Amino acid sequence: MASSPLQPRDPERFGLRDTPIGAVLLTNGDIDHIAGLLTLREKQRFRLMATSEILSVLDANPIFEALDRELVPREQVRLDERIQLLDGIHATLFAVPGKVPLFLEGDTVETDLVGEQTVGVELSDGQNTLFYIPGCAAMTPELRDRMNGAQAVMFDGTLWTDDEMVQQGLGQKTGKRMGHMSMSGADGSIAAFAELGVGRKIFVHINNTNPVWTDGPERDEAEEAGWEIAYDGMELTL
Amino acid sequence: MASSPLQPRDPERFGLRDTPIGAVLLTNGDIDHIAGLLTLREKQRFRLMATSEILSVLDANPIFEALDRELVPREQVRLDERIQLLDGIHATLFAVPGKVPLFLEGDTVETDLVGEQTVGVELSDGQNTLFYIPGCAAMTPELRDRMNGAQAVMFDGTLWTDDEMVQQGLGQKTGKRMGHMSMSGADGSIAAFAELGVGRKIFVHINNTNPVWTDGPERDEAEEAGWEIAYDGMELTL
Repeated sequence: MASSPLQPRDPERFGLRDTPIGAVLLTNGDIDHIAGLLTLREKQRFRLMATSEILSVLDANPIFEALDRELVPREQVRLDERIQLLDGIHATLFAVPGKVPLFLEGDTVETDLVGEQTVGVELSDGQNTLFYIPGCAAMTPELRDRMNGAQAVMFDGTLWTDDEMVQQGLGQKTGKRMGHMSMSGADGSIAAFAELGVGRKIFVHINNTNPVWTDGPERDEAEEAGWEIAYDGMELTL
Repeated sequence: MASSPLQPRDPERFGLRDTPIGAVLLTNGDIDHIAGLLTLREKQRFRLMATSEILSVLDANPIFEALDRELVPREQVRLDERIQLLDGIHATLFAVPGKVPLFLEGDTVETDLVGEQTVGVELSDGQNTLFYIPGCAAMTPELRDRMNGAQAVMFDGTLWTDDEMVQQGLGQKTGKRMGHMSMSGADGSIAAFAELGVGRKIFVHINNTNPVWTDGPERDEAEEAGWEIAYDGMELTL
């Protein structure tokens, strides 16, 4: 993938209070994915893209009207539709197992829904492919086939073990309940990727309970299996 | 006012992920006042208090359901009703001129509404009184009478001059359009407080265009008129 900086679509947008953000592509409607939009207001021009279901979460919350729709048009993206994101970069959204946002949970919650509420992104410049999948409740044959051969995958690294938040006295919820598969274990992501032909494997969306953050046997195990641990400001060149 | 630390209402709430915040009292329904609630989730117990109109803004945005109503009860506060906020500390909300939140603005916007959408707070321990008024479109005789004799007032310091954002090329809006009176000028806050008997006068809610942030004639003028400029981490002892 070209390592050139983002190309602004409109030179006039780079004003005193602007950001280099040209497009926002949402992969989930939960707070950790959408609340940041509120700090991008007001009067900054960018494209806001998501599935119909994720856009409906924004539409149902008038607070997001602070993003002026004249400057921040909301673009509906269909699953498995290839869209142009930036000059020379295309993106494709696809369904991965997940759940509805926390604040829309009813009395019962299905944690391995496959639909428009939790999606992964395939980014391509026509030669190289990068996957960004910050939330994923389970590995599926379809997902495995899709990622095989990619240059890089950034993948849901929320927890090391399913019950680590409970064990650390930080809550009642397991990873499964939150719609996340764990790094470790027979059904974990490290095992799931072991036979996959993926160039770089990078954990993202890592919870602060996850022991992989610090030096120790878990970090060693992840790195020995070929995983990198993402960090703030990380830059990737493929 | 007593300088003792906040008294937790429930010792069990001080867990590994808790905060010392025991109560949140909203004075406005706009994003800079309410978006921070989204970072206090999830499963932290505190009281959430506001007028009916400001609570209706939260109610209209399902994203705030992330604050579990069992743990974060929403308490409606009537204007001019004295409520107990913490042990020995009472608060009274009162109307100040202002406007509806940005994201609820219609085609025309009334910028000096007096109602439940923009309020000030009077805090008292029975002896000393502190006012917190982060947004105020104009000084009124009622507001002047109310604040007279207070030990301290923290007041709307958004802009120095009404058109400074326009002058700096940062937007089309004046302070008046945003519902804020300026610091300087004949109808500004420095002049409005000149004859008021207030112990400490402290500007808060200061926009990053305001020249009072840096050393210079505006800062000198504010300080010579007896004003302090609030800063992150400021602690007050009355």
